[in-house]
Amino acid sequence: MVTDRGDCLRSILFFVFAALLLFAVSKQGLIQPKGPWWLSFNNVRKVKLTGAVQHTGAMFPEFKNLANQIPLHPLDPLTVQEINRVREILVSHQPFSASFPSIHSLELDEPEKDTVLSWVKGDPLPPRKAFVIAYLNGQTHLVTVDLGSGQVTSNVTVPGSSGYPMVTTEDLISALRVVYSSGEFNKTVEGRGVKLSDLSCLTPSTGWFGPEEEGRRVVKVTCCSKEGTPNFYMRPIEGLVVTVDIDNQEIVKISDTGRDIPIPPAKNTDYRYVVQKESPKMQPLNPISIEQPLGPSFRVEDGHIVRWANWRFHLKADQRAGMIISHAKVQDSETGEFRSVMYKGFPSELFVPYMDLDEGWYFKTYMDAGEFGLGETAMPLVPLNDCPRNSYYMDGLFASVDGKPFVQPNMICIFEKYAGDINWRHSEVPIIVDARESRPKVTLVARMVATVGNYDYIFDWEFQTDGLIRAQVGLSGMILVKGSPYENLYQSPKNNTKEMSSPFVSENVIGVIHDHYITYYLDMDIDGSDNSFLKVHLEKERTLPAGKSPRKSIMKAKRQVAVTEEDARIKLKLYDPFEFHLINPSKRSRLGNPVGYKLVPHGTAASLLDHDDPPQLRAAFTNNQIWVTPYNRSEQWAGGLLSYQSKGDDTLATWSERNRPIENRDITLWYTLGFHHVPCQEDFPVMPTVSSGFDLKPVNFFQRNPIIAAKPNLQEDLPICWSRQLH
Amino acid sequence: MVTDRGDCLRSILFFVFAALLLFAVSKQGLIQPKGPWWLSFNNVRKVKLTGAVQHTGAMFPEFKNLANQIPLHPLDPLTVQEINRVREILVSHQPFSASFPSIHSLELDEPEKDTVLSWVKGDPLPPRKAFVIAYLNGQTHLVTVDLGSGQVTSNVTVPGSSGYPMVTTEDLISALRVVYSSGEFNKTVEGRGVKLSDLSCLTPSTGWFGPEEEGRRVVKVTCCSKEGTPNFYMRPIEGLVVTVDIDNQEIVKISDTGRDIPIPPAKNTDYRYVVQKESPKMQPLNPISIEQPLGPSFRVEDGHIVRWANWRFHLKADQRAGMIISHAKVQDSETGEFRSVMYKGFPSELFVPYMDLDEGWYFKTYMDAGEFGLGETAMPLVPLNDCPRNSYYMDGLFASVDGKPFVQPNMICIFEKYAGDINWRHSEVPIIVDARESRPKVTLVARMVATVGNYDYIFDWEFQTDGLIRAQVGLSGMILVKGSPYENLYQSPKNNTKEMSSPFVSENVIGVIHDHYITYYLDMDIDGSDNSFLKVHLEKERTLPAGKSPRKSIMKAKRQVAVTEEDARIKLKLYDPFEFHLINPSKRSRLGNPVGYKLVPHGTAASLLDHDDPPQLRAAFTNNQIWVTPYNRSEQWAGGLLSYQSKGDDTLATWSERNRPIENRDITLWYTLGFHHVPCQEDFPVMPTVSSGFDLKPVNFFQRNPIIAAKPNLQEDLPICWSRQLH
Repeated sequence: MVTDRGDCLRSILFFVFAALLLFAVSKQGLIQPKGPWWLSFNNVRKVKLTGAVQHTGAMFPEFKNLANQIPLHPLDPLTVQEINRVREILVSHQPFSASFPSIHSLELDEPEKDTVLSWVKGDPLPPRKAFVIAYLNGQTHLVTVDLGSGQVTSNVTVPGSSGYPMVTTEDLISALRVVYSSGEFNKTVEGRGVKLSDLSCLTPSTGWFGPEEEGRRVVKVTCCSKEGTPNFYMRPIEGLVVTVDIDNQEIVKISDTGRDIPIPPAKNTDYRYVVQKESPKMQPLNPISIEQPLGPSFRVEDGHIVRWANWRFHLKADQRAGMIISHAKVQDSETGEFRSVMYKGFPSELFVPYMDLDEGWYFKTYMDAGEFGLGETAMPLVPLNDCPRNSYYMDGLFASVDGKPFVQPNMICIFEKYAGDINWRHSEVPIIVDARESRPKVTLVARMVATVGNYDYIFDWEFQTDGLIRAQVGLSGMILVKGSPYENLYQSPKNNTKEMSSPFVSENVIGVIHDHYITYYLDMDIDGSDNSFLKVHLEKERTLPAGKSPRKSIMKAKRQVAVTEEDARIKLKLYDPFEFHLINPSKRSRLGNPVGYKLVPHGTAASLLDHDDPPQLRAAFTNNQIWVTPYNRSEQWAGGLLSYQSKGDDTLATWSERNRPIENRDITLWYTLGFHHVPCQEDFPVMPTVSSGFDLKPVNFFQRNPIIAAKPNLQEDLPICWSRQLH
Repeated sequence: MVTDRGDCLRSILFFVFAALLLFAVSKQGLIQPKGPWWLSFNNVRKVKLTGAVQHTGAMFPEFKNLANQIPLHPLDPLTVQEINRVREILVSHQPFSASFPSIHSLELDEPEKDTVLSWVKGDPLPPRKAFVIAYLNGQTHLVTVDLGSGQVTSNVTVPGSSGYPMVTTEDLISALRVVYSSGEFNKTVEGRGVKLSDLSCLTPSTGWFGPEEEGRRVVKVTCCSKEGTPNFYMRPIEGLVVTVDIDNQEIVKISDTGRDIPIPPAKNTDYRYVVQKESPKMQPLNPISIEQPLGPSFRVEDGHIVRWANWRFHLKADQRAGMIISHAKVQDSETGEFRSVMYKGFPSELFVPYMDLDEGWYFKTYMDAGEFGLGETAMPLVPLNDCPRNSYYMDGLFASVDGKPFVQPNMICIFEKYAGDINWRHSEVPIIVDARESRPKVTLVARMVATVGNYDYIFDWEFQTDGLIRAQVGLSGMILVKGSPYENLYQSPKNNTKEMSSPFVSENVIGVIHDHYITYYLDMDIDGSDNSFLKVHLEKERTLPAGKSPRKSIMKAKRQVAVTEEDARIKLKLYDPFEFHLINPSKRSRLGNPVGYKLVPHGTAASLLDHDDPPQLRAAFTNNQIWVTPYNRSEQWAGGLLSYQSKGDDTLATWSERNRPIENRDITLWYTLGFHHVPCQEDFPVMPTVSSGFDLKPVNFFQRNPIIAAKPNLQEDLPICWSRQLH
């Protein structure tokens, strides 16, 4: 139980619910992690990924060296030089010249929308600005930096009572250092039979639950044993939670309610291919691949402009949102004009409430984007498995806590997808008309994966040639589990599934029920910025008078334009259905229909928590599935700009309360998709992907089916392939 | 206007809402259609489809000649010899020896479930029997024929008041002949400016709307002009409907309320690739294909047993259901045992109510499976476009009205799908654990397309290696349109989308709002036949007493086993959510959880029609999304065995009213998925595919994630491909 603590370096693997980091810590101090997943700028390089493929015909302009990258589009993220320049400007600015703050966010301050919309390639770029969220002496600074003039143009301080910025790795490291130097903690861990060298600690956010933890930045520390497994998540030291004041570097509370709960066994938890002794009992699959011998049909121009088929959009990595689609335009199938569909779209916030009231669990109500950052936690994609062969990879370039740039390598992949599906089809009778027409569906996908600790969130944007945009979220990775004193249901006094809300998923392991909500920011600009939100209500009419028709009832579509925000707060109801259109009331088709796109939800779930429950207050943006707000530059993060320990006083729900006019204006659509997750044995020790999403589908946007003239697959177009295994 | 009617053959293309046929009719009589889509047995042959591909390594046992096929499994469909033998037996049986009935269905009478379940390969087949639905002199005969003894073992007559069997092609031809020989009809058509030689007529079913049409078999005839287009659906002769008594071969009523409505123009309606003058304005796509140089990993054994990865199931074509999956078993990833999941699954009925009360529209409330047959209307799949390259094709073998066998060639395809998706993944921090694990998702799809006249229904069953089964329905083809006296919304007195329920989709063309409901029969047998339906209710609890927890509310999973059918009539509610499990209460996992599968709906819609509305009475099986009934051999068709002109007195809803016990019994799950369809311009003249479906997902069925040991994609496994276009 007792390790030599005198002179050895001990490694603690800790996990933050977003900034997944590894570091080696000694009693004397901290060794800055070095590795491909966490690069300071001194070490900027593309990570060599096994299996990366060169393809004939794949002609992508690659930035061999991010250090030489220059911005080419008004929305391009800050470059290495620009990030360094912002840091220089901050260093010479009061009060930062005296004491440099910790940098929690340092990103492009996007130009005004009008400026971006009027810019064309060849024009000089609009002034480059940075928006910085810095933290110093208990205050958050919202700083705007003008790179042209080299000036800080604005510095607004915000007190901690309004919430804090995304935590940094250093915040979490310091919290762990505090915990680690606690004799009481170490004794407790050893008392549970876990060697300190086997300790892997996680740093979940604390949420907000009233005055007790208010006024100070607090994080929780929970720990696992990594003895015998890389999958330490499955070996929780149940009931041990340390509450740490990050800024004051002190322990607020150590709670250990789990002394009678064994650490669950390591057996069967390792998911790595190299350690698998036996293949699953099934016929092996022959190799299968999406092949394009002439290479992909898309191009990435100027680093961020993706062009494919009839689509053109700007794609960038973002430390908080993960991946941002901007300026998505689709080419009119008849005029060739590129027509605006979406000015900006990204997952604005996640809400992941766990359903367990125990001391070690009640606070687990994460808002992953605002607390930890989806880009911050993105891992390099695994070629050939996360993305198919012909993928193009894009890096993320962010700022670390010291204001210096670092790279998230191979964070985004772009690829064409062909799944054997059908774009459209119809068969007719051959004697009069020999029409057996069918068109294969080929789409373009942009993908990233945020590994927010245990969970892996797979974010896809998929573009179809018929104008449809699909956003999809896949959930994989590890479920968050709870140790149980009982090995299984047979031993449990609740030997009855009826009484157990959260089920056993392995020996001594309970999969705690939870929800996932992902709220998308969708600044739709349908053929221009001024749009309206049209609700097409499908309602039953009793057909009257009696005897008028053999039918007694009918469904009719009644159209209602939302006038103010209140009209656009929508809870989906199967038996009170609507279609939800974003239309341009100034543009009508040749037939007189307003041009539009509709939002089509896939399977989803809604939060059942009370609206006055603190987690739901903070995540009040999930109170409805749909909201529409007038465009407001400052309203992008559904849980508020500063959502760490936020109280819910600056969310989409509070903005919407202003009930502003939204008709024929620049408006933003918000959609929340959800999952209830009652875990099961199949989710152990790693969970098969579960997906859902939504579509943005053109409705009277095109004059007619835009892909009617698309080419079918012909035999002579197909590749000729052989396999190494044939020899 | 006037054609030479004296001696020329005139061709009428007519369309039946299921039996899409072409025929040439003279004044003297009927010329039996000959063509690949409609083969009498004399002409049994595989149709040569362009683009069919031979692949290295694809080693499928093919039945070169269906005439030599013999049954090898108790569930195998009747063979050519068996169908002919059934006909011989019927011919010598009273009353059919005097007058041979029209054969509306002639299929295998499946053996009792116990018999099938106890049969193993090598055993002699259980006695082969046929179930025949024949129609003679206004009465339906339900006939059972024993092929072994050569006897009719049962012949039950049913009066017409209980509904009629699926219509036959001959029924519809005779109805059209009646219409065609009507001077009044011909005059009306010519009065609308349509040459009789340009006439294409459809034969929609009449539904049931009370006593007026009761007691006689009635079909409606509506017509279009095919002048200048193969897409006659877009050129309706609006308002002209002829009601025909099929058996008495007489016109009941000619209604023409559309004299002021022009025939919409042919322009832009032809969807065939050969006539497209201009490609859509978009960058062309490079060739893309799912490639497997070693061939597919699945095998089709004995004609109908599909084996792939960890799955094994029986697959057959069916004249009414289209495609039936039987005996689906998945291999346990650890023991290797094949475990039962689903005894039988198929789309049991469709309900497609249109929302227009006009004389020419009110009756359009189709039940496509029972009225026309999904297999009957299936067209040969288009290789490389309906299904990807490495597909295996399966024929359907059915009986025609004279009891002779005919082939639906290449009706089903089976293929492996790889869409670039992820089966499971997790990334860890490489310094301690170099775990960046991701597994590609490869699935197996069985697909067929029913072209029920204008609409193309793409039915997919998809099998995943993690045990999940997905059923998916894609809608494409032509929407049903209505002629308008106005060219567009600007000209319409309702120049206001608010007042128009169904919108303009082209000049003088309105896309009539409608719904689609597809009700699946799912005889789940989870590890055996005796199962229970477990509802896992996710319900909010206020956390009490106040102060007990910082949380004010929580969601809990409460488990309720459905005792009788009433407990299992489910309307989905977003804010009152359940999980729906089929469990085997006698089999618990090592942890004590009952083994099960859950039903996971995707996006769906529900019928808003009143329950006492005649179409909804007939389609009362759509009153709930979920039903569970005790297994009953005679309860397979949700709208009743005889659903043509049915009154709704023999539907899933009426069976469920018996409120039978369903706990720990052999039970059947029914799920209805739906679409509301408000058409739009993009649906004209052919509609991009819209899809939805549902999943059957293992829940505590496996001891753990069954694909944890699956192999990742490796560079050396991938094919080496080149393109003809490179030269």
